[in-house]
Amino acid sequence: MEALRQMILSQGKGIGSDIVKVDMFLNHRIDTGLLFAMGEAWAAEFRDEKPDLVLTVEASGIAMAVAAAHALGDLPVVFAKKSATAVLNNETVQAPVYSFTHKTHNTIRIERRYLPAGSRVLIIDDFLADGQAVHGLMSLCEQQKATVVGVGIAVEKGFQPGGNQLREAGVHLKSLAIVDGIENGVIRLRPDDD
Amino acid sequence: MEALRQMILSQGKGIGSDIVKVDMFLNHRIDTGLLFAMGEAWAAEFRDEKPDLVLTVEASGIAMAVAAAHALGDLPVVFAKKSATAVLNNETVQAPVYSFTHKTHNTIRIERRYLPAGSRVLIIDDFLADGQAVHGLMSLCEQQKATVVGVGIAVEKGFQPGGNQLREAGVHLKSLAIVDGIENGVIRLRPDDD
Repeated sequence: MEALRQMILSQGKGIGSDIVKVDMFLNHRIDTGLLFAMGEAWAAEFRDEKPDLVLTVEASGIAMAVAAAHALGDLPVVFAKKSATAVLNNETVQAPVYSFTHKTHNTIRIERRYLPAGSRVLIIDDFLADGQAVHGLMSLCEQQKATVVGVGIAVEKGFQPGGNQLREAGVHLKSLAIVDGIENGVIRLRPDDD
Repeated sequence: MEALRQMILSQGKGIGSDIVKVDMFLNHRIDTGLLFAMGEAWAAEFRDEKPDLVLTVEASGIAMAVAAAHALGDLPVVFAKKSATAVLNNETVQAPVYSFTHKTHNTIRIERRYLPAGSRVLIIDDFLADGQAVHGLMSLCEQQKATVVGVGIAVEKGFQPGGNQLREAGVHLKSLAIVDGIENGVIRLRPDDD
């Protein structure tokens, strides 16, 4: 998506070999105009999949999920909650998520009734790197017998394996921008496929 | 705001004497249509204050801040991050927040450059009870020499002191619904002032 690509190139910062800092417009300060344009881009990609629910994980996925849900006709949004420990009860479904960035094991969880069996779920998140968060969200859907009809990502780190693993598994994945590498602080983006 | 009041009465659950459970439409599953109507209601209340930035705290305030910012012409949103411990560095401004609900001390923090001096800030949050989160956000603004032009809340617990303290201090506060009490699971709402 050209507007996001231009924002990454003009404002984003590459740090080391694998950190893409975009918190000045995406996940600490939010450029709301860009956010809703991103929502429209995901809606254009996934409308034909007829999602009836948008699923994400707190915290930084929430704004993007809301924008996508709005563009798709105000679908409900459900966000999984993070906690350090599993909370076992019959009302909650959960999945483990390992963060390579923070080297932490977390559990994400949702109240079961908010992810009903048979739902057609569009997963939205800000970053895709190793794919752990998306796999955790897909696990919640699988446990609930809901169908994942697509995965929409803002920034994919194309040099990490998560995106290609999802594509090879046949998942309908749309990353609005794909970073192919970072060299000397310069972020190199993959040419847009739109 | 009538639509929120009706949703609280029809779907919300009162638990004990002070818990208002609205996570089926507000802060776990989000009713996106209602969310954007709430954004319009806050915008109508605060447009004349000419805010240029919407400030909230992760996680459940984010969706509401985005809706308000969108209705105000796609203002930028900044969300404070929570952590258990203070992270002292020159680039970050922080404030302590005590949660009476969870009996925990947290620190909220923002990168200073995302809350510039002179900003006209609209604070948005989902709940107002003892007012600790709002006071923490106001402290961040004060430290940054930004001006708080208003505080928009979804659900105020009118039987707790936070709201009245803000009104007595002259803060322009708009709570879209005010809960006056919970008795035997029934949520009693204050009559609307619109």
